[in-house]
Amino acid sequence: MHWKNNLTALLGIQYPIIQAPMLGITSPEMVAAVSNAGGLGSLPVGNMDATAARAAIHKTKSLTAQPFAVNIFAYDIPISPEQTAFDAMQTLLQSTYSRSGLGVPVVDLKTLHLNSYKDILPVLTEENIGIVSFTFGIPDDAGLALLQQSGVKMIGTATSVEEAVYLEQKGMHVIVAQGAEAGGHRGTFMNNGLPQIGAMALIPQVVDRVGVPVIAAGAVMDGRGVVASLMLGASGVQPGSAFLLTNESMASGAHKAAIAASTDTSTRLTRAFSGRWARGLYNTLIAAVEESEIQILPYPYQDALTQPARKASKAQDNPSFVAMWAGQAAGLAKGQISSGDVVRALIAGAEELLPSLKVN
Amino acid sequence: MHWKNNLTALLGIQYPIIQAPMLGITSPEMVAAVSNAGGLGSLPVGNMDATAARAAIHKTKSLTAQPFAVNIFAYDIPISPEQTAFDAMQTLLQSTYSRSGLGVPVVDLKTLHLNSYKDILPVLTEENIGIVSFTFGIPDDAGLALLQQSGVKMIGTATSVEEAVYLEQKGMHVIVAQGAEAGGHRGTFMNNGLPQIGAMALIPQVVDRVGVPVIAAGAVMDGRGVVASLMLGASGVQPGSAFLLTNESMASGAHKAAIAASTDTSTRLTRAFSGRWARGLYNTLIAAVEESEIQILPYPYQDALTQPARKASKAQDNPSFVAMWAGQAAGLAKGQISSGDVVRALIAGAEELLPSLKVN
Repeated sequence: MHWKNNLTALLGIQYPIIQAPMLGITSPEMVAAVSNAGGLGSLPVGNMDATAARAAIHKTKSLTAQPFAVNIFAYDIPISPEQTAFDAMQTLLQSTYSRSGLGVPVVDLKTLHLNSYKDILPVLTEENIGIVSFTFGIPDDAGLALLQQSGVKMIGTATSVEEAVYLEQKGMHVIVAQGAEAGGHRGTFMNNGLPQIGAMALIPQVVDRVGVPVIAAGAVMDGRGVVASLMLGASGVQPGSAFLLTNESMASGAHKAAIAASTDTSTRLTRAFSGRWARGLYNTLIAAVEESEIQILPYPYQDALTQPARKASKAQDNPSFVAMWAGQAAGLAKGQISSGDVVRALIAGAEELLPSLKVN
Repeated sequence: MHWKNNLTALLGIQYPIIQAPMLGITSPEMVAAVSNAGGLGSLPVGNMDATAARAAIHKTKSLTAQPFAVNIFAYDIPISPEQTAFDAMQTLLQSTYSRSGLGVPVVDLKTLHLNSYKDILPVLTEENIGIVSFTFGIPDDAGLALLQQSGVKMIGTATSVEEAVYLEQKGMHVIVAQGAEAGGHRGTFMNNGLPQIGAMALIPQVVDRVGVPVIAAGAVMDGRGVVASLMLGASGVQPGSAFLLTNESMASGAHKAAIAASTDTSTRLTRAFSGRWARGLYNTLIAAVEESEIQILPYPYQDALTQPARKASKAQDNPSFVAMWAGQAAGLAKGQISSGDVVRALIAGAEELLPSLKVN
């Protein structure tokens, strides 16, 4: 099978397999393992400060000499919610934690420090990062100009044709088309509701409307998903859930066990954890927030408010308050395997399907 | 390209292209055109009485000597809603019709006659129908036995792995895996919410769990969708929206124009028309029902209540009260084309992709 195409040439990689950036799950070790296997690892630094982002980049560089992408959350921080709304949500969450016997520090809205992607952009150019991917939108024009001047290849994330067309107009070199099947946060950034376009519908319609290479995201778990995505017109794929159970995944044991036991109908879209829509497995935190009908705070305030509980819950390997992001095919994920082996299995699976190509 | 497989052999067809049954859209002429082109036409007779079903079958037989499927809605009619709930919905609808200047007959719950699939089953065996597909579940055991004794090949519709496994256990020879992208009614029949699994996630997970051939439904609009579905493990495809604009489609001019102008984000799932979830384009009826927050009646009562308005609206080529079912890729539909040409284009598109197979 012929793996060289416009995408691999542009990014300087061997195989058009891009590991999805999964903040809290993707370690530098995962990124390096994917890149060392000939794919493109993606290091998520969204919501980190510049120092932490630089440290993660240094760590990754120490593990691979191959190209990898750095992923940032390119959104403008909205104005602070009302203190009363913040308090109402915090009161609900604290009472839920207490009922579960989990001690979680209180978050103070007044002293809350929220990091901006703008602080990370200079780090990327200083560190000679060659590929940057964006979620929740793209940087402002000054930020885009900085990256463009440095020759950075930019990957935007779209959940609709309209978003994809906009991203190409703004100079993205590659567009990820994120199908509704995908686990984790929807990359949606236009204020027209929440597109839930399945990959089978989204990819060909995006490919028909943009000139840059398109990467398919959503439910790519094995060679079947790779080949299907390519047949729909994508130039590459961005699996995420396929890496959840790997040795390099930072998912807790409880999270991994829940993923392994999940089925096609186990996931839901929720705003309970972060204030943005994301797909994952149901648990105590989602139930508490959604059943309460208390107003969910806008991202990233809800995210900041649930962060200490996610950390405490994970430390105890308790799945109740961890954001167990998962796609609709996460149940197909293989465990006790390295992230490099996932890349190799995706390629081998695709090659097995293609040479013997026939209607089965 | 090699088109013979387990599905085409089982059904006695040349190509594994099954035209989706679309009640109100699919004419006998469409069914015959598809079957005459080597695919499998599907004649929808759901909610018809036995006489109408027999007439539609006779008409189709007069137009093709090839196999075609008959599709029935295999559900048990639920108990009647309360008269007050029925009246509340009817009052809302009538006031909405009036505001649009549309005269619509009032529906009388007390004299409402609802047809059962059980009346149609004997017609199918008497008419020597060889292939029957089911939506909203499957017949009761007596019904299944009748069809099995007659050697009928049975096709069930699943929207989740759980439903697919059940259908195989109940003797279905083929399973349609309906992705969330699909237009029209969700075939969901288990009472576990509304699965919205994208085809990219649903098809491989269903294929992994059942032994019978799987047909992929949802967003199959051209050769790309055909090949992608086959690569995911399906044995065939069931396009619906691809036939909406054909010469043999009974869609009104206004419905066709709305489809042609639709984009990936134009559709939504709604219960407003029938009481069951279905995907289509937004219009006046959906807006009125959803915004009112008046309780939607269970299927088929809501369906019976909106039926006269759909008919009157269609007669005036007014899109306001027509159920404009459409999938998430319906905007790719070709118009001014015969349904046979749609089949030929799907095959030609797939064959064009496959011989020159390479990563694009």
